[in-house]
Amino acid sequence: MSLFRPQVQQMEGYTPGEQPQESGWVKLNTNENAYPPSPRVLEAVQQTLSGRLNIYPDPLATEFRKAAAELFDVDPDWILPGNGSDEVLTILMRTFVDAGELVSAPYPSYTLYETLAEIQGARFQKIQLNPDWSWPDAAQSQIGESKILFVPNPNAPSGNRWSDEQLLSLIPARGVLVLDEAYGDFCDQPHRGELLKSEQGEKLIVTRTLSKSYSLAGIRFGFAVAHPDLISGMRKVKDSYNCNTLSLAAATAALKDQEWMQENTEKIRTTRRYLVEQLRKLGFEAVDSQTNFVWCTHADKQHERRYQELKQRKILVRYMKFSLTEGTLDGLRITVGTDAEIQHVLDALQEIG
Amino acid sequence: MSLFRPQVQQMEGYTPGEQPQESGWVKLNTNENAYPPSPRVLEAVQQTLSGRLNIYPDPLATEFRKAAAELFDVDPDWILPGNGSDEVLTILMRTFVDAGELVSAPYPSYTLYETLAEIQGARFQKIQLNPDWSWPDAAQSQIGESKILFVPNPNAPSGNRWSDEQLLSLIPARGVLVLDEAYGDFCDQPHRGELLKSEQGEKLIVTRTLSKSYSLAGIRFGFAVAHPDLISGMRKVKDSYNCNTLSLAAATAALKDQEWMQENTEKIRTTRRYLVEQLRKLGFEAVDSQTNFVWCTHADKQHERRYQELKQRKILVRYMKFSLTEGTLDGLRITVGTDAEIQHVLDALQEIG
Repeated sequence: MSLFRPQVQQMEGYTPGEQPQESGWVKLNTNENAYPPSPRVLEAVQQTLSGRLNIYPDPLATEFRKAAAELFDVDPDWILPGNGSDEVLTILMRTFVDAGELVSAPYPSYTLYETLAEIQGARFQKIQLNPDWSWPDAAQSQIGESKILFVPNPNAPSGNRWSDEQLLSLIPARGVLVLDEAYGDFCDQPHRGELLKSEQGEKLIVTRTLSKSYSLAGIRFGFAVAHPDLISGMRKVKDSYNCNTLSLAAATAALKDQEWMQENTEKIRTTRRYLVEQLRKLGFEAVDSQTNFVWCTHADKQHERRYQELKQRKILVRYMKFSLTEGTLDGLRITVGTDAEIQHVLDALQEIG
Repeated sequence: MSLFRPQVQQMEGYTPGEQPQESGWVKLNTNENAYPPSPRVLEAVQQTLSGRLNIYPDPLATEFRKAAAELFDVDPDWILPGNGSDEVLTILMRTFVDAGELVSAPYPSYTLYETLAEIQGARFQKIQLNPDWSWPDAAQSQIGESKILFVPNPNAPSGNRWSDEQLLSLIPARGVLVLDEAYGDFCDQPHRGELLKSEQGEKLIVTRTLSKSYSLAGIRFGFAVAHPDLISGMRKVKDSYNCNTLSLAAATAALKDQEWMQENTEKIRTTRRYLVEQLRKLGFEAVDSQTNFVWCTHADKQHERRYQELKQRKILVRYMKFSLTEGTLDGLRITVGTDAEIQHVLDALQEIG
């Protein structure tokens, strides 16, 4: 007899990208930002250290919510802070989805959605995207009874972005649409929650992370933006003290230094264009990415070999493989690092052939 | 039609103790440690700040688990780190308890267990303790089908500690016993997971926090210690990156400075004895506490008035009220602060009458 819930007993568990703890790697596998966070973040943490770590953080995250609310031009009760946007996704699942209910997501996409649905005991349905990453015509009818449809906006691992009309057409009749905007700041035209203010906005939840555009994967901070009616339910599920004093200070300072974030994302956009262009010259098909990574495939299908040979050169990229209704799709997802890192991986790819 | 799960729609949500954000309060309401954390904690965070916050933390928390394992004289695969021990409790619920299954806890006790059971859609059963905080004779039969029995060891809000034999007798036939040892380091004879190594230890999980004895409520860090078979299931449920780079560094440094923690807990034990003695002189009944707080009641039952009058003097203690099968139990839970703070609250109580 297992003591675990049957779901937990059966499941594999999510496997995060490799995180080598020793130095010397060119790490282009988990979409971290190659540039450091704002110096104001470090100052804010320093200042907090001289304060009182022996007392609990502000359970209302007042300062952080104020800063995030300003950025999205909403009231602070539209904001829910999380210990990484992964925690926000967990909170969403526990707020909206009962065991046996349906959760959907496009496919290929972020694989954590399925893991979280499994843990919750929900049914999970993949909506297979067309080969050009567009939605199938029958998308809306497939979404059907979903309590949550998770849609990365822009998508991962492809990096493409769908139109606002497309996204709004996907809102489930009896559930909510979660736009996972982990990479939203990297778009050529970054979005700022405009869809939340549309007529259908009351059934929309936007999630954001500070891991990517703000260069703060190490502090684990994300947040949700949604109508206060939705946030109020999520707040009941969230741990009172889910964000710590240091990460709250860091996140607030990061949001307040928009200039720093925008300079870095602009650099990344420039490097991204170069990477896409060069990958195509090397014979790859590469998606016009709106994120800080590029998805590429090669007609010769030797993606896994290239991944391995790059790894031997201490360059980590992400090799991904997806089972489709017919056959499989595999390819390489390369994080847009610094110019030097990208030149390094391009030179290596040329060498490897 | 509500979009929320029925459980979430119906529940009130957990109310944490008051956390005034302005200064000037004598804060004896949420069992924080009046003394600062080890200077080595601050050094460790400083050092981490000069490192790379733009990359993800170590998902295996290798250094932290090594330090915690040494402390409990087990292998690192006995340790699961959490974003506060509250998160560990959530992970336990999601690992072991399906909707409709039974969760039990003594009563009065920590009220978060019930909130977490509600969120999970579990049935929750209070096992009412005797007026002297001992277990009722029928405890074992009441535990019955429980998947988890949560037992604070020592208990809150009473501060009493039960014998090892008593605790081992409570292990549910088809579930696990969780010993929530948030206050374990404050015992006259602190425990270090000895029960885990007993014959029944494979169905035991010990949870620990750094919020109390290590003076680190601000960094949100807790952990579980249990047989690797149990930890392996919990690991599937945990977010990969639930602990951040700064809190991991802080927690590891804190565990490594045992001397600092022990000096502080010893001071608190001394102050605690004085507080209990003086409360009794003022006409209160006070439990011989094994924690960093003291539960006291007065024959005149005017606990709420005293709470309010203390609050007017900017002294926060916790007023608590529990519905029993017959009548109610209310009283004051006073955190053992510094000698000066405790003298201050005692003087105020004398004045208030």
